[in-house]
Amino acid sequence: MSKPLYVQKFGGSSVADSDCLKRVADRVALNVREGRNIVVVVSAMGKTTDRLIAMAREVQADPNDREYDQLLSTGEQITISLLAMALHHVGVEAVSMTGAQAGIQTDAVHTKAKITAIDPIRVQECLAAGKVVIVAGFQGLNPLKDVATLGRGGSDLTAVALAAALKADRCQIFTDVDGVYTADPRVVSRAKKLNEIACDEMLELASMGAKVLQSRSVEFAKKYGVELEVLTSFEVKPGTLVKEAAQMEDVLVRGVAADKNQAKVTLRGVDDTPGVAARLFTQVADAGINVDVIVQNISREGQTDISFTVPRDDVATVQACLANIDGVSFEEALYDAKIAKVSLVGVGMRSHTGVASKVFSTLADLKVNIQMISTSEIRVSVVIDEALADDATRGLHTAFGLDQV
Amino acid sequence: MSKPLYVQKFGGSSVADSDCLKRVADRVALNVREGRNIVVVVSAMGKTTDRLIAMAREVQADPNDREYDQLLSTGEQITISLLAMALHHVGVEAVSMTGAQAGIQTDAVHTKAKITAIDPIRVQECLAAGKVVIVAGFQGLNPLKDVATLGRGGSDLTAVALAAALKADRCQIFTDVDGVYTADPRVVSRAKKLNEIACDEMLELASMGAKVLQSRSVEFAKKYGVELEVLTSFEVKPGTLVKEAAQMEDVLVRGVAADKNQAKVTLRGVDDTPGVAARLFTQVADAGINVDVIVQNISREGQTDISFTVPRDDVATVQACLANIDGVSFEEALYDAKIAKVSLVGVGMRSHTGVASKVFSTLADLKVNIQMISTSEIRVSVVIDEALADDATRGLHTAFGLDQV
Repeated sequence: MSKPLYVQKFGGSSVADSDCLKRVADRVALNVREGRNIVVVVSAMGKTTDRLIAMAREVQADPNDREYDQLLSTGEQITISLLAMALHHVGVEAVSMTGAQAGIQTDAVHTKAKITAIDPIRVQECLAAGKVVIVAGFQGLNPLKDVATLGRGGSDLTAVALAAALKADRCQIFTDVDGVYTADPRVVSRAKKLNEIACDEMLELASMGAKVLQSRSVEFAKKYGVELEVLTSFEVKPGTLVKEAAQMEDVLVRGVAADKNQAKVTLRGVDDTPGVAARLFTQVADAGINVDVIVQNISREGQTDISFTVPRDDVATVQACLANIDGVSFEEALYDAKIAKVSLVGVGMRSHTGVASKVFSTLADLKVNIQMISTSEIRVSVVIDEALADDATRGLHTAFGLDQV
Repeated sequence: MSKPLYVQKFGGSSVADSDCLKRVADRVALNVREGRNIVVVVSAMGKTTDRLIAMAREVQADPNDREYDQLLSTGEQITISLLAMALHHVGVEAVSMTGAQAGIQTDAVHTKAKITAIDPIRVQECLAAGKVVIVAGFQGLNPLKDVATLGRGGSDLTAVALAAALKADRCQIFTDVDGVYTADPRVVSRAKKLNEIACDEMLELASMGAKVLQSRSVEFAKKYGVELEVLTSFEVKPGTLVKEAAQMEDVLVRGVAADKNQAKVTLRGVDDTPGVAARLFTQVADAGINVDVIVQNISREGQTDISFTVPRDDVATVQACLANIDGVSFEEALYDAKIAKVSLVGVGMRSHTGVASKVFSTLADLKVNIQMISTSEIRVSVVIDEALADDATRGLHTAFGLDQV
């Protein structure tokens, strides 16, 4: 039987300096000695990318995208060659590959390219020769044979896509946390590390402020059936497995997440004519604003109130957009940045009822006023006063039986 | 008629920081506005290469050559993208290319690869579209599709080879000096800048301590008929043209150079049997030592004295080599690091006699004792006491009519 193949991704803080690189090399060597084939995907070291961006801005305020990618891709190229040397130093055969050398092809959109195909023939040849292959994350070669970068979270995506193309047994994402928790352990002291979580749950949590994995990577893993694991690079212990829901026991609530980076916008006295919401949110979307929860109350005397949440950084843009809005009239716009969105996620909600009502009664007992409600098949979210978010999170964590015993 | 095409090479000190890059961009923009097509070849910025080497050594004392090249090649890649941005900033269309993108192919020898071919189709397409093309010096793609670096002076070689492949009208090497002088101006205050110099003269001077151009680049330029110009990046003024001797007026002596980086080794009482010199210098060469001048006196009573010069840094290696030498017996080895080699160079010597005797009489008048003599068709070199080298250089400069009037 052939050896199991693991793709292991180490982010910028795991490869910040030469000591970190040596630690990663030791970790990889351990896996090699345990009889695994290993492909390593790495990001740029520590602050390298920030430094390169600063250099570019010194030369030109708004650099050309192609040149920006040509510049930034050197960050990962430095890491791969140094990590190869670090592995040689501990006696492990290893070879570094840029995105292009690893056969990662992208579309033509610089700075946020999409992976279109992977032809990992060189990677496979080197693996067959018993070598560890170290691939530069965050980059590929576009149809013009230029380097293109994948945008935020691109190295995770490189790892997952390579794992899919190589039919790897597992894709491990090493981070500075040791897994996914039932809640933020800094807020909920009794939060538990999860041994496993469903892709769909991870997706809901990823967009809820649990910044462990980028949504694109989880979606990709789900689509191609890649088994993902999130684990710490600082200790040798299992992390959290992100799996297909079908392979797991359903739980009612997997975790509670609080997003404190949202603001609430309320338009009072909106003229409730057909198409008003469409006109409003089309113009808001055209301004590049990502609206999350939307609530519209019933109309009274031809007028209604509409509330929605947006990222807190976008409030000024929303204000500018509403000042010039076309075909929507309202009495006044109110802004509240002191809100938080608290969400419960669990695939078991699909087949159980009563979660929402238990959320409401739990919050009522805690004297927390609910400002907005939003639900999906596997999620219940409430918008509440930011000052009460931690209390609410802890209360819900206990009420749904998530506390560590 | 099509526009003239210039290849312009800027070294590490010309592109040390963002201000330097902006100055280079202004210089290139000036040439574009004068109606030239421009290909720019650049080195890594300032101390970048040293910094990358230091990072490698932190990880592994003796890094693998392939990984070393993968690492070092990022230095030039950073410069090309930043210089493209700097050109965009001054309104010049420009596109950066790695050695691979510019079609520079090398052999498989990492860290000192040779350029085997150039297929500059992308460069030509971009030039035809009216763009400045910025190419990373010092690197190419080897037959395995790996990045290979060209070794010392590699960026000059990239520029000359690209100029040959593109049939450029001129290859300009921008440095921190404004041209080639009749002697080192720091030693000879009346030294003149040369408007032109023959390739062969430049080759003799390049190996004589006038460090303006690497020999490999001049040889390449000579072989492919590339017109080279050495000029300063700090001022807009003509430099020194390096041309085919056939296109120039012969001068008896073009310049005087002193090399103070040599040491003299003398073997006294060598058994003068057939093949002794061959055995001696084969073993010295095998130790990686580059012997320059060799003098053997006539044999007396079956013994002879052999002297030769080597780079001063190699004296310890020579001592180790002589301690274990095979098939060569001698009474003692003497080492003298306090020597200098002073050379006169001029293609006119081919057709004139009397240069050597005038050198000897000039030095005799200056009370300079000549320790060794070596000549070529277009060069006379003498090895003398290092302390007298500057006086000898000035005296010869005056005696051969080179002083500025």
